Amino acid sequence: MLKFTLLGTGGMMPLPERGLASAMAAVNGRQLLIDCGEGTQVQIRRFGLGFKAIDGVLITHFHGDHVSGLPGLLLSMGNSGREAPLTLAGPVGLTHVADCLRVIAPELPFEVVYSEIDPDAPAPFACAGLDIAPFPLKHGMPCLGYRLTLPRPGRFLPEQARKNNVPLPLWSVLQKQPEAVLDGVTYTRDMVLGPARRGISVIYATDTRPVPAIAEMARDCDLLVLEAMYGDPEKRERAVKTGHMLMEEAAAVAADAHARRLWLTHYSPAMPDPETWLPLAQAVYPEAALGADGMDVDIGYTANA
Amino acid sequence: MLKFTLLGTGGMMPLPERGLASAMAAVNGRQLLIDCGEGTQVQIRRFGLGFKAIDGVLITHFHGDHVSGLPGLLLSMGNSGREAPLTLAGPVGLTHVADCLRVIAPELPFEVVYSEIDPDAPAPFACAGLDIAPFPLKHGMPCLGYRLTLPRPGRFLPEQARKNNVPLPLWSVLQKQPEAVLDGVTYTRDMVLGPARRGISVIYATDTRPVPAIAEMARDCDLLVLEAMYGDPEKRERAVKTGHMLMEEAAAVAADAHARRLWLTHYSPAMPDPETWLPLAQAVYPEAALGADGMDVDIGYTANA
Repeated sequence: MLKFTLLGTGGMMPLPERGLASAMAAVNGRQLLIDCGEGTQVQIRRFGLGFKAIDGVLITHFHGDHVSGLPGLLLSMGNSGREAPLTLAGPVGLTHVADCLRVIAPELPFEVVYSEIDPDAPAPFACAGLDIAPFPLKHGMPCLGYRLTLPRPGRFLPEQARKNNVPLPLWSVLQKQPEAVLDGVTYTRDMVLGPARRGISVIYATDTRPVPAIAEMARDCDLLVLEAMYGDPEKRERAVKTGHMLMEEAAAVAADAHARRLWLTHYSPAMPDPETWLPLAQAVYPEAALGADGMDVDIGYTANA
Repeated sequence: MLKFTLLGTGGMMPLPERGLASAMAAVNGRQLLIDCGEGTQVQIRRFGLGFKAIDGVLITHFHGDHVSGLPGLLLSMGNSGREAPLTLAGPVGLTHVADCLRVIAPELPFEVVYSEIDPDAPAPFACAGLDIAPFPLKHGMPCLGYRLTLPRPGRFLPEQARKNNVPLPLWSVLQKQPEAVLDGVTYTRDMVLGPARRGISVIYATDTRPVPAIAEMARDCDLLVLEAMYGDPEKRERAVKTGHMLMEEAAAVAADAHARRLWLTHYSPAMPDPETWLPLAQAVYPEAALGADGMDVDIGYTANA
């Protein structure tokens, strides 16, 4: 089970009823935060998620609305007694930006482990029980989308365990860990399990123009969270110029990817009523839904498509 | 008339229903912001004050809860089309802190004019139609309190104007400007006006231990806004250690100063119900009131005490 929560759905400026775009993924009691604009720590509290279980923070890019809440979050984590290290990942330049912002949070009772990602050669990594695949977006500065995957091991197959001469005491052990040794012999998980099954995958992509990489990463995903800075088709030129998407462009990406769900987010502060434009997106991708602060979903495993 | 609004009344960490301590003074359509913790820009919007009329921002000190909202505020001012210069004043070190935080707001469509104040020799200055007198507080780092005064010129006295041979056409001119020249002769305001009358003064002091300077600056003031991080007298030792005040200590300062109003602010996030402890403060200073987010007052001129 993966729980995904939108903490804020605004772009550029926070509004009293719309926080800056950020989101939380939670798996087995661990949490992963994506983006941290001003006010994110309050949204985390507001929606009852807490700071302690956050193992990592992924930053998409360094525009203020995506990172301005970072020093405050770190301070509050410290004031809450955190001692466990925190992973902070983002595009190259992260160390400089985070160190500057930490002028007001220089000393923390926990370590912040920086992980800079090269948008031209983004390597996957793991955090908070999730496999994370960053990928490059197209914005006014280096910007990353993230695919989060909760992998699902294959089914336990007793006949396979027998065929591979795996001793009976290791049958349950190998369902929980990748390998085990008994009497000097190493046994691996694939000796008792069938092929890996469909996991759960969520793609978060903001800020960006529509680029083929998004649909490629989002193929058959469970949830696709996409920016939709503008709804009015007359804003197309502005969207192109500023590196953002219209709602209907985001919908086209979701349709191309055959995503199971599409949530729109990162609305312009000049768009107080995103619902005005939703029908245009739903005409392209009927399942398109408007994200809202605090909106969440529990995604369970499903059969392969 | 001076309007004073508490934007947030929390210390350390913002809570969903309690923003970080900051405040706005407004006189004749111009505004002066004091402190700018994370979320200040949202509070400004929430209470309908706007960004455009803000001529200056006074920072008390560089703990995160007093300055973490600065880059976001500057970005939003820029995105709102501001072009007028903004004064940013605070203790020595301001330039370094602000420049670091502006890693995410490096280019703005308006100038930020830094004004560093030496807490050991703080010079008064004027901004947003107010006379501002900074004074040193006692906290874990250099920290400034601010007295804001809206001065009130003396009454117009025709007999004095006649006695000083001020030509009739200058009588009204000298009620609006400090001096005027006619036929090569310079006439000054004091030639037509009586002694300056009592103005309006507001003192804002956080974070600090009680120090004599506060009551000295706050003598007979209209409004004294003081931090009250803790209410429970058992927290006295903690208050001393962390450079904060108990509510009853703040009340004693107000009583000493004969302040006309006392508003308490900057509550610990571990104090969800400040009203529990208010009676202890009111026992010392009966007019003590609990500040709350959005609380405001219009202060008019009154006669001398």
